[in-house]
Amino acid sequence: MRGTERSVVLLSGGMDSATVLAAARRRGPVRALTVHYGQRHARELASARRLARCFGVEAHVVVRLPIGPLLESSLTRPARRLPAGGPGADGGLPSTYVPARNTIFLALALGYAESTASRSIWLGVNAVDYSGYPDCRPEFLRAFRRVARLATREGVEGRPIAIRAPLQRLSKAEIVRRGERLKVPWQWTWSCYAGGRRPCGRCDSCRLRARGFDEAGVVDPLLDG
Amino acid sequence: MRGTERSVVLLSGGMDSATVLAAARRRGPVRALTVHYGQRHARELASARRLARCFGVEAHVVVRLPIGPLLESSLTRPARRLPAGGPGADGGLPSTYVPARNTIFLALALGYAESTASRSIWLGVNAVDYSGYPDCRPEFLRAFRRVARLATREGVEGRPIAIRAPLQRLSKAEIVRRGERLKVPWQWTWSCYAGGRRPCGRCDSCRLRARGFDEAGVVDPLLDG
Repeated sequence: MRGTERSVVLLSGGMDSATVLAAARRRGPVRALTVHYGQRHARELASARRLARCFGVEAHVVVRLPIGPLLESSLTRPARRLPAGGPGADGGLPSTYVPARNTIFLALALGYAESTASRSIWLGVNAVDYSGYPDCRPEFLRAFRRVARLATREGVEGRPIAIRAPLQRLSKAEIVRRGERLKVPWQWTWSCYAGGRRPCGRCDSCRLRARGFDEAGVVDPLLDG
Repeated sequence: MRGTERSVVLLSGGMDSATVLAAARRRGPVRALTVHYGQRHARELASARRLARCFGVEAHVVVRLPIGPLLESSLTRPARRLPAGGPGADGGLPSTYVPARNTIFLALALGYAESTASRSIWLGVNAVDYSGYPDCRPEFLRAFRRVARLATREGVEGRPIAIRAPLQRLSKAEIVRRGERLKVPWQWTWSCYAGGRRPCGRCDSCRLRARGFDEAGVVDPLLDG
């Protein structure tokens, strides 16, 4: 049973956005939006394309944003080392933090949603097993919902575009369990920051993923293959 | 006398952003950010470059955002006619409305400001002599300020990046007067939507500009040349 809620899904190609795509697709037709911003893990792009095809999206737009030179982060500057001490190991934000990334992604999704008469935007942010980025917190999303209401024609007319972040309060293990129920093809998702042929197993993202599968008692087919 | 407030200015090349650039430059060092999003009036770009040079900015970043295909607007779709009935003549939003444009611009400026330790973002939005776009209203900017506070490292630490829109409540005539005081080189600004060699004189933007200069009793050197 599919619903009729037309939506835009921010699809990175990672396990969280894949789970969100699966959930949004049950509600209705989906347009997927992938932003390639010069990050190291361009491998995510290939995963995003596969996932979009797998879930039968109406359209998959890949926006190439040349914002690498604009934003300071180890994800966009190959010369900077990736952290491997675990999330927030040094007490501050890890160098993988990309300033205003979720604000930029949501702003683009908002324009796309309004242009296509979509009723909601879905994204896979998570504030439990995450790297401490400020723009993953529930209060950030609440603030952006207000922007979405005031910035758009529909919002002004009383039909704001909804911002849905269903994984926000789930642990990585709970996300794995939810993804299992939604039949997410994990083998086509990609999480590693390093951008090798196989996951490095050492970066924050690999560690969070491994712990999630481990705690959920599910075998990660990406490591099993 | 120059101040020390480091800022990012959203510079389109029009008369409003030129006036804002002049004001920000008095406060301190400026980085200018111009977003080229496939709009018709690419002529604005050349104006932006000239203005940035003229005011001695520290850096001028032009981001080419291929969002034209993503956003529905007569400014990005050459096949759609430009409105010439005056702002809001048909009671609704004009076709020049670009969904979420200011949200996207502010999001990019926020990332750039955080990456360069800038303390403020300046933009030339105006809610008096404007085309009725929802993302030009004071309540939209208030909502975005909250996003800026919650989305960034500095904001979380109690030093949010300020969003300054000093022209917000001025009429076009008042903007012309303020620009005169700040010695804005009007001949290097560009307002026309049509993108010809000379201003068309018929589009909403040309009409607003002409009325502003007229009411301020100032001759527009762009028409005088």
